[in-house]
Amino acid sequence: MDTKIILTEKEMPTQWYNIQADLPEPLPPIRHPGTKEPTRLPPPLFARALDEQEFSTERHIDIPEELQEIYKLWRPTPLHRALRLEKALDTPAHIYYKYEGVSPAGSHKLNTSVAQAYYAKKEGCKRLATETGAGQWGSALAMGCAFFGLECKVYMVKVSYHQKPYRRILMETFGATVVPSPSEDTGIGRKILSEDPNSTGSLGIAISEACEDAGSREDSLYSLGSVVNHVLLHQTIVGQEAMKQLEKADVYPDMIVGCIGGGSNFAGVFLPFVKDKISGKKPNMQIIAVEPQACPTVTKGPYTWDFGDVAGMAPIVLMYTLGHSFVPPPVHAGGLRYHGMAPIICHLVKLGFVEARAVYQIPTFEAAVQFARAEGIIPAPEPAHAIRVVIDEALKCKQSGEKKNILLALSGHGHFDLGAYEQYLSGKLEDFEYPKEKVEEALKELPEVPA
Amino acid sequence: MDTKIILTEKEMPTQWYNIQADLPEPLPPIRHPGTKEPTRLPPPLFARALDEQEFSTERHIDIPEELQEIYKLWRPTPLHRALRLEKALDTPAHIYYKYEGVSPAGSHKLNTSVAQAYYAKKEGCKRLATETGAGQWGSALAMGCAFFGLECKVYMVKVSYHQKPYRRILMETFGATVVPSPSEDTGIGRKILSEDPNSTGSLGIAISEACEDAGSREDSLYSLGSVVNHVLLHQTIVGQEAMKQLEKADVYPDMIVGCIGGGSNFAGVFLPFVKDKISGKKPNMQIIAVEPQACPTVTKGPYTWDFGDVAGMAPIVLMYTLGHSFVPPPVHAGGLRYHGMAPIICHLVKLGFVEARAVYQIPTFEAAVQFARAEGIIPAPEPAHAIRVVIDEALKCKQSGEKKNILLALSGHGHFDLGAYEQYLSGKLEDFEYPKEKVEEALKELPEVPA
Repeated sequence: MDTKIILTEKEMPTQWYNIQADLPEPLPPIRHPGTKEPTRLPPPLFARALDEQEFSTERHIDIPEELQEIYKLWRPTPLHRALRLEKALDTPAHIYYKYEGVSPAGSHKLNTSVAQAYYAKKEGCKRLATETGAGQWGSALAMGCAFFGLECKVYMVKVSYHQKPYRRILMETFGATVVPSPSEDTGIGRKILSEDPNSTGSLGIAISEACEDAGSREDSLYSLGSVVNHVLLHQTIVGQEAMKQLEKADVYPDMIVGCIGGGSNFAGVFLPFVKDKISGKKPNMQIIAVEPQACPTVTKGPYTWDFGDVAGMAPIVLMYTLGHSFVPPPVHAGGLRYHGMAPIICHLVKLGFVEARAVYQIPTFEAAVQFARAEGIIPAPEPAHAIRVVIDEALKCKQSGEKKNILLALSGHGHFDLGAYEQYLSGKLEDFEYPKEKVEEALKELPEVPA
Repeated sequence: MDTKIILTEKEMPTQWYNIQADLPEPLPPIRHPGTKEPTRLPPPLFARALDEQEFSTERHIDIPEELQEIYKLWRPTPLHRALRLEKALDTPAHIYYKYEGVSPAGSHKLNTSVAQAYYAKKEGCKRLATETGAGQWGSALAMGCAFFGLECKVYMVKVSYHQKPYRRILMETFGATVVPSPSEDTGIGRKILSEDPNSTGSLGIAISEACEDAGSREDSLYSLGSVVNHVLLHQTIVGQEAMKQLEKADVYPDMIVGCIGGGSNFAGVFLPFVKDKISGKKPNMQIIAVEPQACPTVTKGPYTWDFGDVAGMAPIVLMYTLGHSFVPPPVHAGGLRYHGMAPIICHLVKLGFVEARAVYQIPTFEAAVQFARAEGIIPAPEPAHAIRVVIDEALKCKQSGEKKNILLALSGHGHFDLGAYEQYLSGKLEDFEYPKEKVEEALKELPEVPA
């Protein structure tokens, strides 16, 4: 029995998989934040190629060769069988994990950042601006920009900026400029700081700042690390690899589990599989998206039209949302502190192909430490949420005697999140209940959209 | 052209390579610190299997199957061709790097820590004690102990304990107890603190503390992360993999470059190759060991008998040394701050098969940042020393037009060393000259050994 299933560089997928070709109902449109009418991606912000990908219904989209060469710096990534964790749990379940932490950025985020830097460069752009939560996306974009010779400006959610200084230095090592968000560098940042100088920030605020930055400069484009269709598209290289790897072991997953913040890591893994559920080939496959109790977008939020960002500058999309003005409690999984969710994931949840669960922070870290001591890998707090559910499901299999094949999306390592581990180990970590009243308040501010 | 050359788990070496079978002259004995007479490893400190390996002249030693299964958590590791770095340098040289940073401990150290935990457990030991510099060895032993259910106590060099808190938390996540060295937990620690309460510590001091700890407890053994023969033996899995990988590309290296602190990382890579230089098959292959100017053991120290530790409790070995009481300046490459050097490496240097160079800290970080921006990987400060020399040699190839094949031992990533990168990027890093007078002072305290 191999511990890892690996692919050669020649076996690496050369196309991305586009779920839009296989949806039973097309995605709803996205709407202009001002006119509220259906729109493309805002043209001064995004590269044209990304806008085309955003709305494409082609099933397969070629990965440019120059980009494939960059992917080969770390791809294909390994698929591990968690033999030691299975043994520790004494479960008949087989647990596989697709590990994106071997990327130099330490997570899946590099899969799209290099693609976005490639297209920006190709279209004559000199500089990218973006936001980052826990810092994984910012690190990834800093590297992508370094690989293609672009400047990079990162607005980092303030709570993470201070919790994770090493992430900032990592970005700076790759030549990026990093500021805590809300910052004094943008109008929206200055406005929020004037109202609440102690704001811990949020992904939504940071998105608004980065959009304002890129929108106000001719040499710059904006770059998004999650949520939108083209980002999820780029991440499908992960799930396609995992599918090839499982095929080598003659395995098809009964259950796929991943964490969702904006949704791109998990979508990257499950989208190539969900088409078999849509087509009826694998009707019983479970696809479980895991989110924090502190920010339970899909499990608690309504499915409705809302802005993608706090300031109302980003398009309005149909999604599960806690309200664009909602600022979640400062859980350590900064990458899961987003008020909304990728429209593709929301659409698939609404259609019944994907289910969602919410877990608390402390049992999540408990699962992460158990995983680390068995498998050696310290997971980032975000995928630790998925590990919590995988362990719970594997223990259910122990009760029922079922030999389920479980595929875990292990999106990154926690080498820059050890402050959170220290809090957990010293008993100082706190759990946050679902802030129901704050969400109800935020949901009063949803935009009105024409029928 | 593949960016990475990979091996399957089935291609992983199943034996370690023992250079003692192929040395033109046998290694000098090691001597008891008290009697000064030739001795085995101190029996209350080391597992019997390790003592056997220490003096074995068998060419190949089987890797136990249970241990092979643990190795497969992360091995075989990739061999990269540094295509982007070559392009950035505009060099005709081909640069390959064997990357041990994909191990969950982030470095090569795990190769021997799991072996040592395995043998300790097998011989009924309950607890291992050790020292650590930059924290890589301590992290590796903490993981090894977690995998085999042993307790772990780590004496961490004080300067690193404070510079690298994340390394400490990493060890604690795996259940280890970590104290800054010199500590109040041992006699030698208390003695040093009473003489110099501000001592920044050194690997030598920490070794003494860990030896005293293990020697004074029935349930404990001591565990060494470098220097001794059995550690270098365990690391040869790295060089054997690299050799297989280069064979797949039909390449034999003209030059192998690695950093040396205790010597195990570099020895692990070059030992399987150096036998071809000893046998005369590859007489012109250059093997270059790189050390910091602040602690230039091989380039500046005499080849003489000295204690392996500060307190004079460890065996006396024939090696290049700066004197066992020498405390090097606090360079960020904590793993290179050792007064001595692996006897196997010293023997091969003395016989003319290995050469040594010393480099400064600032140009080392300059090379590290250049490497990171090209290849994506942030190197640990230790192997960054080797990267400095590889870049210099590749630029010489540009001048001469030579197409050398250069193999770099990239022993680990720098995710826990970003404080040092921040100092470099902000211009606050300082270079340390060779502290000649302190060395001369320390060399007055060499032990006298019978002829």
